[in-house]
Amino acid sequence: MITVNNNWVFIMQKDVYDPSIPDGQNSTIKNPISYDGTGEIGKRYIIPARQGRAVRLKKNQSILIYNTKGNQVCDFFALIDGAGSEFLSMEHTRTSLGRVYVRTGDTLVTNRRRPLIKIVEDTSPGIHDILIACCDHERYQQLGASSYHDNCADNFRMSLLAINVQIKHIPSPFNIWMNIPVTGNTGEYSWEAPVSSAGDFIKLSAHEDCIVVMSACPQDMTPVNGIGVLPAELEFELEN
Amino acid sequence: MITVNNNWVFIMQKDVYDPSIPDGQNSTIKNPISYDGTGEIGKRYIIPARQGRAVRLKKNQSILIYNTKGNQVCDFFALIDGAGSEFLSMEHTRTSLGRVYVRTGDTLVTNRRRPLIKIVEDTSPGIHDILIACCDHERYQQLGASSYHDNCADNFRMSLLAINVQIKHIPSPFNIWMNIPVTGNTGEYSWEAPVSSAGDFIKLSAHEDCIVVMSACPQDMTPVNGIGVLPAELEFELEN
Repeated sequence: MITVNNNWVFIMQKDVYDPSIPDGQNSTIKNPISYDGTGEIGKRYIIPARQGRAVRLKKNQSILIYNTKGNQVCDFFALIDGAGSEFLSMEHTRTSLGRVYVRTGDTLVTNRRRPLIKIVEDTSPGIHDILIACCDHERYQQLGASSYHDNCADNFRMSLLAINVQIKHIPSPFNIWMNIPVTGNTGEYSWEAPVSSAGDFIKLSAHEDCIVVMSACPQDMTPVNGIGVLPAELEFELEN
Repeated sequence: MITVNNNWVFIMQKDVYDPSIPDGQNSTIKNPISYDGTGEIGKRYIIPARQGRAVRLKKNQSILIYNTKGNQVCDFFALIDGAGSEFLSMEHTRTSLGRVYVRTGDTLVTNRRRPLIKIVEDTSPGIHDILIACCDHERYQQLGASSYHDNCADNFRMSLLAINVQIKHIPSPFNIWMNIPVTGNTGEYSWEAPVSSAGDFIKLSAHEDCIVVMSACPQDMTPVNGIGVLPAELEFELEN
């Protein structure tokens, strides 16, 4: 059960796993861009380091996501508005593309194989990931964290709770700027630093009305957000 | 809404997408191995060609899946019993393994990163897939099917409906014997015929009580179940 008032969110532990309930909290849950996630066209929004934000994107609108510092991964999710069970799906996108990497011009599809998000423009070298699950509480515990660690699964949950959208499942994200090269015949991959630069952006357009959720990945226990740098903020802007 | 009597299942179309409702039907829904999916140890069960079956696997028990004809892919799913939202997850398994292929000895994990299924033994050359979504109604329509085509998503749904288990999501399966080699630096893969032989089996053990669902993949519009052969049956057996 979740109770919300102006400043705090109270979450009662449940015996049965509920995918919508965060394992911990950060400021994401108190800072939606608006009460229902509707944004203003042309306004530059900030996703603070280690946090997430949800924004509604209408059919044919675009979102520009800026890698402000250059080293920051964005875990990107999209849900069909009003359903909650249909979302951008990497496993269906891989089938559709015939590749385990994406390129500019590609259209990413939902778990019902419908086109949802198109990569329209990308000023970075185009290295992104569609293979890896978003980080979560359990991941950081396994990496050795001794207490709660911000994570993309909770940022996804909180971004949506903050605009009163319930989910049934945490989809595998489109990991923008995440560098996971698959090498060798045995299918090994490695966790590498992003090859993007400060100010790089990616422009994505929507085939359908949807809710986009972005998490500025708080991973600081593997090098996916760069070596010797802290997880940073991201920015985004809507375009008609 | 779903109504079941002895012989037929009536499904009312809903406006909102419900992941538990099949797009069509075959005999899977009328032929559970028992009313709740409990099986007999040592009994050889048949999964007829193009159909699915659910079976309960207890902690430390094993299931042996036989590729009777040699060319048949098995879409394999596992759900934690009693939860419905925790299931074997390929995106979390790829993170855990550091590879996009599996090997004998590997442990596959859930979306909560808990060990669930271990590959104990494999008489085939060990070529299996953990990248591709299961086939579904939309996939066959896109491949050119003009009417309903049996599919693994519906077999998964029907296998569980047949033992009265509801689901909230169709996980990406462990595609046993499916041959999807990733080639080249640009991440392309190809759809190849299985390299397994008649009578090959794989033995999987359970870390937790779970419900296993297997679908004898009805794909006959790409070569994943072999070239010039029809989709075939599979067999399975439980072992203490």
